[in-house]
Amino acid sequence: MENRRFVLASRPDGLPRPENFRLESGPVPTPADGQILVRNVYLGVDPGLRPALADAHTGDEVDDEFEPIPLGELVGYFDAGIVERSRHPGFAPGDWVTGMLKWQEYGVLDGAAARKLPPELPPSTGLGVLGIPGLSAYFGLLELGAAQKGETVLVTSAAGTVGSIAGQIAALRGCRVLGTAGTDEKCRRLREEFGFAAAVNYRTEKNLAAAIRLAAPEGVDVLFDNVGTRMVSDILPLMRPFGRIVACGQIADYGVPPEQLPGLRNTNRFITHRLTLRGLFVHDFAESFPRALAELSEWAGAGLLRCHEDIETGFERLPAAFAQLFTGENAGRKLVKIDERDRDGH
Amino acid sequence: MENRRFVLASRPDGLPRPENFRLESGPVPTPADGQILVRNVYLGVDPGLRPALADAHTGDEVDDEFEPIPLGELVGYFDAGIVERSRHPGFAPGDWVTGMLKWQEYGVLDGAAARKLPPELPPSTGLGVLGIPGLSAYFGLLELGAAQKGETVLVTSAAGTVGSIAGQIAALRGCRVLGTAGTDEKCRRLREEFGFAAAVNYRTEKNLAAAIRLAAPEGVDVLFDNVGTRMVSDILPLMRPFGRIVACGQIADYGVPPEQLPGLRNTNRFITHRLTLRGLFVHDFAESFPRALAELSEWAGAGLLRCHEDIETGFERLPAAFAQLFTGENAGRKLVKIDERDRDGH
Repeated sequence: MENRRFVLASRPDGLPRPENFRLESGPVPTPADGQILVRNVYLGVDPGLRPALADAHTGDEVDDEFEPIPLGELVGYFDAGIVERSRHPGFAPGDWVTGMLKWQEYGVLDGAAARKLPPELPPSTGLGVLGIPGLSAYFGLLELGAAQKGETVLVTSAAGTVGSIAGQIAALRGCRVLGTAGTDEKCRRLREEFGFAAAVNYRTEKNLAAAIRLAAPEGVDVLFDNVGTRMVSDILPLMRPFGRIVACGQIADYGVPPEQLPGLRNTNRFITHRLTLRGLFVHDFAESFPRALAELSEWAGAGLLRCHEDIETGFERLPAAFAQLFTGENAGRKLVKIDERDRDGH
Repeated sequence: MENRRFVLASRPDGLPRPENFRLESGPVPTPADGQILVRNVYLGVDPGLRPALADAHTGDEVDDEFEPIPLGELVGYFDAGIVERSRHPGFAPGDWVTGMLKWQEYGVLDGAAARKLPPELPPSTGLGVLGIPGLSAYFGLLELGAAQKGETVLVTSAAGTVGSIAGQIAALRGCRVLGTAGTDEKCRRLREEFGFAAAVNYRTEKNLAAAIRLAAPEGVDVLFDNVGTRMVSDILPLMRPFGRIVACGQIADYGVPPEQLPGLRNTNRFITHRLTLRGLFVHDFAESFPRALAELSEWAGAGLLRCHEDIETGFERLPAAFAQLFTGENAGRKLVKIDERDRDGH
């Protein structure tokens, strides 16, 4: 039995392209004691993979999590699949699990690194609301952002997975929620499906700050940012005293040579308004994942927290789906579902 | 009896110049019930006055503390002087006090807005170690920066009042302290008089980041910044995981048109290294001032915490002394002492 996998063929120069990845195949791995063999079904396509495709970011030591992936090595992030063989007492064949299985058809996980998905929810939820995106939204908004009832929360790239979940959690917690997105259709979805009070199309609004000010005349308490430098520069002058900025992602900055980035402006606002900016790395909160997952599951089970899924079918679609993340074409949680006929060689 | 005072004559265009201020004179004010009349002796010359001389910073609502001073109005900040008349039970003639008396020879303070200075220390200490600079250093370093024993602390503009005090407190708390300053003489003073482990001359070092890295090969845990955008951009790649940046001042940015500021670069470091940036406004900690002043007084009394004073004599020197703050010519706490002969009309 063959196991197909995507490896890094070349480092992206600017926006990632499908040619940066190469399809290879090898044997299906064998689980050791304490491990499980998982047959992937939903493969995650995540912007967070982008920094790991680059050369070292600043030429100096970085954390292991941000080490660049070597050329020729397997790429990917978290996936959801079905246990095929278990050598761990906590898992049985047929269980749905999620873990960092990466872009391959079959993968092996240590039991401690796998998480069983609740059978009452669709398994793809494990890559959205109950996955790293949901956890990032949860801890970013509530811990780093410390969003309080009655405050105004602005989410950038709000139609994205993390953004839409962060906005919904903020609304559930009694905040007034605003978002930015790149199409009128995404803005409509934010307002009509996700409970945002207002949404701004950053592509068509000539003056982003003015449009946001119109929607939030009293300013912004929490900025949950997924986009990066240029948009945060525009929003800083709208931040209220003691406002918090959560740096969750910088999708507009990834792959741009540092000297071409605009630089963060209006930083005097940090002093005049006593702002706090903090960078989010969700795995720092791993000890609290069970508590968060319990609350997220409750909301998801009650239909209060959803995530728009954008699912393509066919393992070989992974590189193209990933490249689309950076052009604003996708909307919501991007997943690739493995086509069973394809896997069986039909 | 005349009371001379400086008012704002024009808003600085770029660096402040002495001509931006105008000498006027009027009657000595009369204290109401609960107030005291103070004869100023040491007048403070503070970079923190600069933002209040500008037009509204961003064209939108700001806190009262940062409202621009109207043209023709009295300017200044905290001073130290002697009580001449008291209509408050807590003060008697002859007491040394500090308060926001501004650039005038005589001023009136509410009792609650005046602070008596400890008689065992020189009264000018009330404008340095025991004044707003000392309190800014204390709360910036220990509360916002949360500097811990054994950590590496980098202070920019470290030969300045706040910077030198922050560095000494960090050393007293068991941190390894590095600083930047603009002359070799200031760097020598940081090492030999203020207990800094290393000091970097930012004017003569071609590559600031490389020079700091040489002094701190393992990186920086706390950056106490008094300078602003460009220098922080250079230092960000040196910050260690979970590092804290205290934005205390932006002396290099004041008066520069926003579109000419370089913009903060290397902001990806916030996410990869989970950094926190917070703006300091010391008056937010007013409730804790007594506790801080007790500790600062103890250190100052024991000779463990000092501040280099740069004192000019003559009330009329105030505008020129203020302008010098922005050219790097001064070193340490800039004060103007009122010449008694001058005040008496000799």
